Amino acid sequence: MASAQRPNAAVSDVSGPRTGRRDGARLRILLAILALATAARAQPLASWNDGPAKTSILAFVQAVTTKGGESFVEPASRIAVFDNDGTLWAEQPMYVQAAFVIDRVRALAPKHPEWKRKQPFQAALTGDMKALAASGEKGLVQLVLATHTGMTSDEFAGMVTEWIATARHPRFKRPYTEIVYQPMLELLTYLRDNGFKTYIVSGGGVEFMRPWTERVYGIPPEQVVGSSIVTEFRLAGDKPELIRLPKVDFIDDKAGKPVGIDRFIGRRPILAFGNSDGDQQMLEWTAAGSGKRFIGIVHHTDAEREWAYDRKSSVGRLDKALDEANAKGWTVVDMKTDWKRVFAFE
Amino acid sequence: MASAQRPNAAVSDVSGPRTGRRDGARLRILLAILALATAARAQPLASWNDGPAKTSILAFVQAVTTKGGESFVEPASRIAVFDNDGTLWAEQPMYVQAAFVIDRVRALAPKHPEWKRKQPFQAALTGDMKALAASGEKGLVQLVLATHTGMTSDEFAGMVTEWIATARHPRFKRPYTEIVYQPMLELLTYLRDNGFKTYIVSGGGVEFMRPWTERVYGIPPEQVVGSSIVTEFRLAGDKPELIRLPKVDFIDDKAGKPVGIDRFIGRRPILAFGNSDGDQQMLEWTAAGSGKRFIGIVHHTDAEREWAYDRKSSVGRLDKALDEANAKGWTVVDMKTDWKRVFAFE
Repeated sequence: MASAQRPNAAVSDVSGPRTGRRDGARLRILLAILALATAARAQPLASWNDGPAKTSILAFVQAVTTKGGESFVEPASRIAVFDNDGTLWAEQPMYVQAAFVIDRVRALAPKHPEWKRKQPFQAALTGDMKALAASGEKGLVQLVLATHTGMTSDEFAGMVTEWIATARHPRFKRPYTEIVYQPMLELLTYLRDNGFKTYIVSGGGVEFMRPWTERVYGIPPEQVVGSSIVTEFRLAGDKPELIRLPKVDFIDDKAGKPVGIDRFIGRRPILAFGNSDGDQQMLEWTAAGSGKRFIGIVHHTDAEREWAYDRKSSVGRLDKALDEANAKGWTVVDMKTDWKRVFAFE
Repeated sequence: MASAQRPNAAVSDVSGPRTGRRDGARLRILLAILALATAARAQPLASWNDGPAKTSILAFVQAVTTKGGESFVEPASRIAVFDNDGTLWAEQPMYVQAAFVIDRVRALAPKHPEWKRKQPFQAALTGDMKALAASGEKGLVQLVLATHTGMTSDEFAGMVTEWIATARHPRFKRPYTEIVYQPMLELLTYLRDNGFKTYIVSGGGVEFMRPWTERVYGIPPEQVVGSSIVTEFRLAGDKPELIRLPKVDFIDDKAGKPVGIDRFIGRRPILAFGNSDGDQQMLEWTAAGSGKRFIGIVHHTDAEREWAYDRKSSVGRLDKALDEANAKGWTVVDMKTDWKRVFAFE
C-alpha cells in the first residue's frame, strides 16, 4: 500500500501534520512521566534492607496482583489493616495519646482543684509515671473520660489539631507526627500503588487520630478504626451538634479489633500488621481468611535508633503473638536488621 | 524552522515514522474513548425530567467541582450520604428487611413450636400484617434478634446472599434488587463520576445490606453505615469466628444517623438524601456544615408507578422533615413529575 512506502504521509492523512507533531510531543511527555513513575515503583521499600521480611512483602504483593495467577485478588478486596501505636509510630516512652491526656489534665486542672489529691489525676499532674502506670487501663480510661468529653466533636478535633502541631516527643524533640516509621510509610505507599486500600485499626481513640492521619500516613479519616466514646446528637437552638459523653462506646483492642474490622470495613483484610499482643486477634482473624494472606509483626529490637522491648514491656507487650508468629510462619520484622532507617529525620 | 515546512519529517525526526503512525492511531482511540465518556457525562441523570430538582443537583455539582470557584470542594471532602429504604429502593408494602425477617421466622419455626402462640412471632408466621405493625419497633427488634443472631457473621452474610437472590417483591414479582430507583442509580453514578464518595446511611441492618450494595448500587461494604447488633470474637478450636449476639449495638436512625456518620466516616457530608422523618437529623447535620451543601428528599407522590405516601404513613413517614425542607429550601424530589422512569424495568 502507498502508505507503507510513505509512512509520514499516512500520519498526515489521518490527523494532519500539526496534530501529528503535537501527538508525538504529548506522547513523549506521557512516556517520560510513566518512566519516572515506573522508576519510583521499581524501588519500593527503599528503607528496607534486603532480607526475608522485605522479600516476603514483595512476593505477597506480586502474588495477589498478578492477573491470572492463582492468588490474584481483585483490587476491591485488597484491604490492608495496620495497628498504629508501635506499628506506624513510636509508642515509647508512653502512648502518644497518653501524653495528650496528661497535657489535657494539666490544662483543665485549674477548674478541678480536687484533682491534686485524687489518683490518677494527681499522678498525671505531677508526672508520676509509676503511679500512672499502676492505675492501669482503668486509670487511663478515667483520664480519657475526664478530658475527652463534654465538648462537641468539632471542638475536640480542634484540640487534637492544635496539640499535635505543638507537642514534642520527649526523646527526639520533634513533633510526634515525625516519629513515624519511614519503612512503614513506604509500605503504605507501595500497597496503595498496588491497588490496596489501607486502614488503621488501633486501640487509640478514633477522634484522636483522624485529624492528622491523612496528612501523615495518607490514610483518610473514613479509613481509621479506633476506640470511641459515646456521642449524642443535639440541637443547640437551631444548630445541630454532636456532644461527647463520658461513656465508653467501643474498645478497639485485642478481641475488639476483629469486631471493629467487621463493623467498620465489613470485609476481611488480606494483609494485617501489628506489633503487640493487642493485635493478636486481628492477625488471627486476617490469617483465617481463604486465599493468600500476609501477616506482619514489627519487632522492636533497636534500642539505639528506637527502643528494644517485647515480652516484658508494659507498653506494647509482644509475647503470645510472637510465639504464634513463630509457630505459624508470620513475618516478624526485626527493626534493627530489616530497616535501613527507622525515622525520616535520621 | 525546517520542521515547520516539513511537518511530517519533524515527526519522524523524533520518534521514527512507524512510531509516529502508531502514536496517531493510539491517540485517535484515546480521543474516541474520551468522546464517548464525555457524551455519557454530558447526559447525566437521563431518567430525570428537566425541572427544579434536576437543575439544583446539576448546579450544586457544578459549583463544588469548579476549580477556582468560591464553592469548590476538594475531592477527598466530597462525601455524599444516602438513606436506603424509600430513598434508593422501595420500602412498600413493608421494609425489605422485614420481609427477610418474616421468611427467617418461617424457616426457623419448626425449631420453635412456642412461636405459634407468641407475638410478634405468631403474626409473622400467619402473615398478620396488622398485628405485626402493632408490635412496632419493639416487635421488629425482637424478631431481628431472634432470627439474625446465634450464627457467625460469615454464615449470616450467606443467608442474606441466598435470600436476596431468590425472594421476590410481592407487587412487582421481581428480585428486590431490581426495585431500586433508576434516577437515584444515575445520581450515584453522576456523583462518583464527579469525584464524590457515595455512602449509604440507613436504619437497616448493616449486615443485611453489605452483601449486595456493591453489585446493585456500586457502593462497597465499607461505605455502608447501618444499624448493628453486637458481635463477639471467639476461637472455635483454632478457628477465629465472629458470633452474632442477641443484643442491639447501634440503631442508625433519627438522631443516630449523624452519630453513625461521625463514627464511621469521620467527616461531615456535603450532600445528603433521605425520604422520611428518620432522615431529618442526618439532613440537618449535613446542612449545618460550612460551605455549599445539597439536601434532598425523595417525596413518594406516584401511586401508579410506585406508591404515594407521606405525613400519615406508618412506613417511611415524611412529616416534620417535609416542613423543614419547605422552610429551608431543601430540594424535594416529586417522584411523579421529576422522574421519567422510577424503575429500570418499566
